[in-house]
Amino acid sequence: MLKIPSHQVAGHQAGDGMLGPLVDDSGRFYKPLQSDARGSQEVAFYTSFSSNTRIPDHIRRFFPIFYGTQLLEASDGSGLLPHLVLQDLAFNFVHPSVMDVKIGSRTWNPLASEDYIQKCLKKDRETTSLPLGFRIAGFQIYENKESGFWKPDRKLVMGFTVDDVRSVLRKFVSSNPCSDSDPDCSFASIVYGGSTGILAQLLELKAWFEDQTTLHFYSCSVIMMYEKEAALEGRTSGAEVKLVDFAHVAEGKGVIDHNFLGGLCSLIKLVSEILTSPDECPIKGGLREPE
Amino acid sequence: MLKIPSHQVAGHQAGDGMLGPLVDDSGRFYKPLQSDARGSQEVAFYTSFSSNTRIPDHIRRFFPIFYGTQLLEASDGSGLLPHLVLQDLAFNFVHPSVMDVKIGSRTWNPLASEDYIQKCLKKDRETTSLPLGFRIAGFQIYENKESGFWKPDRKLVMGFTVDDVRSVLRKFVSSNPCSDSDPDCSFASIVYGGSTGILAQLLELKAWFEDQTTLHFYSCSVIMMYEKEAALEGRTSGAEVKLVDFAHVAEGKGVIDHNFLGGLCSLIKLVSEILTSPDECPIKGGLREPE
Repeated sequence: MLKIPSHQVAGHQAGDGMLGPLVDDSGRFYKPLQSDARGSQEVAFYTSFSSNTRIPDHIRRFFPIFYGTQLLEASDGSGLLPHLVLQDLAFNFVHPSVMDVKIGSRTWNPLASEDYIQKCLKKDRETTSLPLGFRIAGFQIYENKESGFWKPDRKLVMGFTVDDVRSVLRKFVSSNPCSDSDPDCSFASIVYGGSTGILAQLLELKAWFEDQTTLHFYSCSVIMMYEKEAALEGRTSGAEVKLVDFAHVAEGKGVIDHNFLGGLCSLIKLVSEILTSPDECPIKGGLREPE
Repeated sequence: MLKIPSHQVAGHQAGDGMLGPLVDDSGRFYKPLQSDARGSQEVAFYTSFSSNTRIPDHIRRFFPIFYGTQLLEASDGSGLLPHLVLQDLAFNFVHPSVMDVKIGSRTWNPLASEDYIQKCLKKDRETTSLPLGFRIAGFQIYENKESGFWKPDRKLVMGFTVDDVRSVLRKFVSSNPCSDSDPDCSFASIVYGGSTGILAQLLELKAWFEDQTTLHFYSCSVIMMYEKEAALEGRTSGAEVKLVDFAHVAEGKGVIDHNFLGGLCSLIKLVSEILTSPDECPIKGGLREPE
């Protein structure tokens, strides 16, 4: 009954005897608890967040629904393991185009161990996290029935420059994502734009982050997803923004999460630019898998 | 004719044979060029900024007027040295209360030398820059004719915790800044509040930083200043926000300055909180010089 999720684009993935999340056919997502402190920290976050009455409903909807924890046979066959039971964000989608954006120029909590800080700082400096305030952790873009999804290898994504990120954010809403010609951004207005589009949702999140001082989200991702076929038919694209990965959430102690907010504003700016100038492609040539 | 500025609260200071800025009696501020790359970088910034037609006037007014460079007898007696000639920001004030806030959780440009980065990172981690997104670099608060200014030692300021910063931002607009009792925040509404107050000015800057992608301001300070006697008489306090210290400005390359913006939003949040709850002092007891 449990199977490997089809639309996971980043993080540990099940399959080939590896430990990773599973989904069922009723819309639930089972995420194995990481054995170190991260597992228990993520449970603690979801438990506290789901009972936190100060979170307004229009913000709560950005978070996966939490159904508790459950002991399950692990995907790597290592026996029973506790899993977080969460909403399967891709459940209502047929061919979701999905982008996982890890927010923040700093992915580490100042209170973490020195080893962990140095590891994160190195990765932040090697990726676009430092210059851009966020990095793309993975994505898939649905092309069509014949070609299916463009879902590049993690190594390619980790090597993205700022210009690559700019380009991929255009390709994400283009009918020709894998073409060598300029991305046409033909879905930009329906996916990124509009009163229920991705930009509007990011701006709602931004307003909350300008104000809330109770939670700091280190190494947390914004997921952007939409259904290309719906967009093609001119229907609402079902564009959704969600937040995931809360193993490094820390207490805000009365200070805003300026690190997350700064990165979020940077993402908002790039998305806005695509809406204002969908035709103006700053980068020539395609971004392709290495041959 | 040139003299040591009376109201400088941070940075290298002239006097006792040390090299530092000087002022004249016509409203000009002479800042000696640092001998390393920083000096020429700051000249390059002012030169380019003053001729940059894309800077709107309501933003330009946050920057000191630039009058070029001039060879002057250095304050340490070391002979002729090139100086930046700038507007003396304190010129029209009698007893200015001044706060120098170095903005950004990261004071280093990713392209700087590894030694410099490590030095800055260490200081960012030791001060409130990392948790708060900014640190107070120095301040003076005018008390009254008898006591004059409270201008703490640099060492005290560098040791500030997040709670100390919160407290000093209250004391800055209080009639009892040096008292052991809670700061009364009696000037908060006239200095921080209102359509021309400090909060309104910070919000104008924020709107610009959400949009501009040409300049990144590392290790740059927001100066907040006002005239207490004017505030006491219920006149406009002459509250002003200025930006200073541009030795580490870098090209934005099409990306917003998310590091500066995040820190600025954090400062805005703390100032807003003082306006919404001027009576609610989170910290008991006074913050005094060590005996």
